[in-house]
Amino acid sequence: MDGSDAGFMREAIELSKQSYPTPNPRVGAVVVRNGQIIGRGFHEAAGLPHAEIVALEQAGASAKGADLFVTLEPCAHHGRTPPCAQAVMEAGIRRVVLADEDPNPAAAGGADMLKAGGLVVEMGFMAEEAATANRVFLGRYKLGRPYVIAKAAITLDGRIATASGQSKWITGPEARKRAHELRAELGCVLIGARTAREDNPSLTVREVAGDVHLRVVLDPERVLEDSLSIFADGEAPTLRVTTAERAQGADLACPVKDGEFDLERLLSGLTELGVIGVLVEGGGATLESFFRQGLVDETELHLAPKMLGSGISWLEGKGVESLDSAWRLRSIHAEALDDGLRIWGEVER
Amino acid sequence: MDGSDAGFMREAIELSKQSYPTPNPRVGAVVVRNGQIIGRGFHEAAGLPHAEIVALEQAGASAKGADLFVTLEPCAHHGRTPPCAQAVMEAGIRRVVLADEDPNPAAAGGADMLKAGGLVVEMGFMAEEAATANRVFLGRYKLGRPYVIAKAAITLDGRIATASGQSKWITGPEARKRAHELRAELGCVLIGARTAREDNPSLTVREVAGDVHLRVVLDPERVLEDSLSIFADGEAPTLRVTTAERAQGADLACPVKDGEFDLERLLSGLTELGVIGVLVEGGGATLESFFRQGLVDETELHLAPKMLGSGISWLEGKGVESLDSAWRLRSIHAEALDDGLRIWGEVER
Repeated sequence: MDGSDAGFMREAIELSKQSYPTPNPRVGAVVVRNGQIIGRGFHEAAGLPHAEIVALEQAGASAKGADLFVTLEPCAHHGRTPPCAQAVMEAGIRRVVLADEDPNPAAAGGADMLKAGGLVVEMGFMAEEAATANRVFLGRYKLGRPYVIAKAAITLDGRIATASGQSKWITGPEARKRAHELRAELGCVLIGARTAREDNPSLTVREVAGDVHLRVVLDPERVLEDSLSIFADGEAPTLRVTTAERAQGADLACPVKDGEFDLERLLSGLTELGVIGVLVEGGGATLESFFRQGLVDETELHLAPKMLGSGISWLEGKGVESLDSAWRLRSIHAEALDDGLRIWGEVER
Repeated sequence: MDGSDAGFMREAIELSKQSYPTPNPRVGAVVVRNGQIIGRGFHEAAGLPHAEIVALEQAGASAKGADLFVTLEPCAHHGRTPPCAQAVMEAGIRRVVLADEDPNPAAAGGADMLKAGGLVVEMGFMAEEAATANRVFLGRYKLGRPYVIAKAAITLDGRIATASGQSKWITGPEARKRAHELRAELGCVLIGARTAREDNPSLTVREVAGDVHLRVVLDPERVLEDSLSIFADGEAPTLRVTTAERAQGADLACPVKDGEFDLERLLSGLTELGVIGVLVEGGGATLESFFRQGLVDETELHLAPKMLGSGISWLEGKGVESLDSAWRLRSIHAEALDDGLRIWGEVER
């Protein structure tokens, strides 16, 4: 914290990372007066006050004449809470520094409202840095469908299980915690039938604050038992995706194309349900379908320093026809995770 | 260079990395007088002067009364060159600071010879740092067989080729240069019959100064054509390894165990030929045999930010029976390489 605009916005960005308010954006805000932060806020969860409101309340009457730094344009609409732009004006804020525009047409317009109210408004300050924490929300509006992250915990030879199917555990506690962060950040987790049957995962968030709001399982043959954890544990709603012919009750019927689910159609269906991000956790066939259909936005691999020499690959299907058509990451990032590596990057389009 | 003993030894270690004098050790030396380096040397290639001699010659008459820093104990034997310990004494050196002991019984004894000659000798200074550059040579004497590095250029899904066999190129120019460094450092490169047939590689060193002294190909069925590059290009000797029943001419007959080559016996045979290190460059079946037989000392993977979704794994065979028996790296190292990663580590025993 160096008392500069960049320092204040950086603090707001750090605040934005404190919560996973899916399907709402992750937003942080600070109120600054005479070079001192007098209010801090982040948006904790959908239905709770927005970041600006929390920061303004903390600042109280001192907000009059102060500056406000927010990572996302304040909303202009009455949603579950009243419009933030109005509250900012009522608090007597003089100048508002904003990073990203709100891409949600229903909520946008806050900056214009503030300008019309006579405030000094600076838009686009450190937009790229702020967008990283908020890439799921921003991606959903840019793409018109949920932002998709492919995630797998693998060995150095790219395997998620031994030949006999043993998969617990490839990676360690830091990787599990990171997986739970991703679940909370995206809010929706998707797996294939084989993973559901063989691993019987719960797909909940346990190691960080946050929730999975929807669990999705691809069950084209509609053969999965209702006794599986995702159907039986009541921890979060679970959507079974199957074909139109086999769909029953609350199942989602998804069109089939070339013998497999048309995943773009599936994502449209999830968009309608309010999903902003989907974490595809496997297995290899499910992940391969998402890649081949061009629907993966980001990949995150948790690499254990182990090798199996045989077993099940994290990405297995028809694949590409030539090296030229390989699926690529735009750039690769790596950092230590447990005794292995976390590797991630955006998928090139 | 800060004028400390550590600074001088660090300079000697850097010098040791300037060459690949296989089957000799990589050694660097500096002569220091009044806190100034007055001679630098490294061992450029087998048959050429050792590092100490180069450094002493550069120092000339000023070496009298000076200190000598060497990364490996000076030799005490008449090999292709006269004993270095004797030359150190004749040059009038006062104090000798050494990192690693010479593990080669035929050459060892230099430190004792120097002490007997009245010089101040300090042994074991920064031994671990010096050993990294020299781990192939040191490993060969510790293990009683060549030091084995498993190397592969792979995609993020662990593949070395598409389903149709296309493998050129997974990685880029930095990875190729690094592969050539490894070939020069180990001096001996080994591949399986399938890689020889499908890729027809030359396995030579082109992008750095150094040489491959021996190319080894596993050809259990003795079916490889003599027209392949490794047999026909004359760039370096090539040893064909086959069974006792099929061996002809200069082939190496290797015993078979459980339906595959007994690789420990193969490494014994290579030890007798003076090989100190073997770079196993694939394919997946050959690498898997080396891992399963417990004969890989280090792994180096060049990871491209690509995915294929199908194809040939870099490590493919019987594999391990359970996760508990997975082959592990002691620790994992990673750095940027081309637009991907270089990942490497010692294999745990």
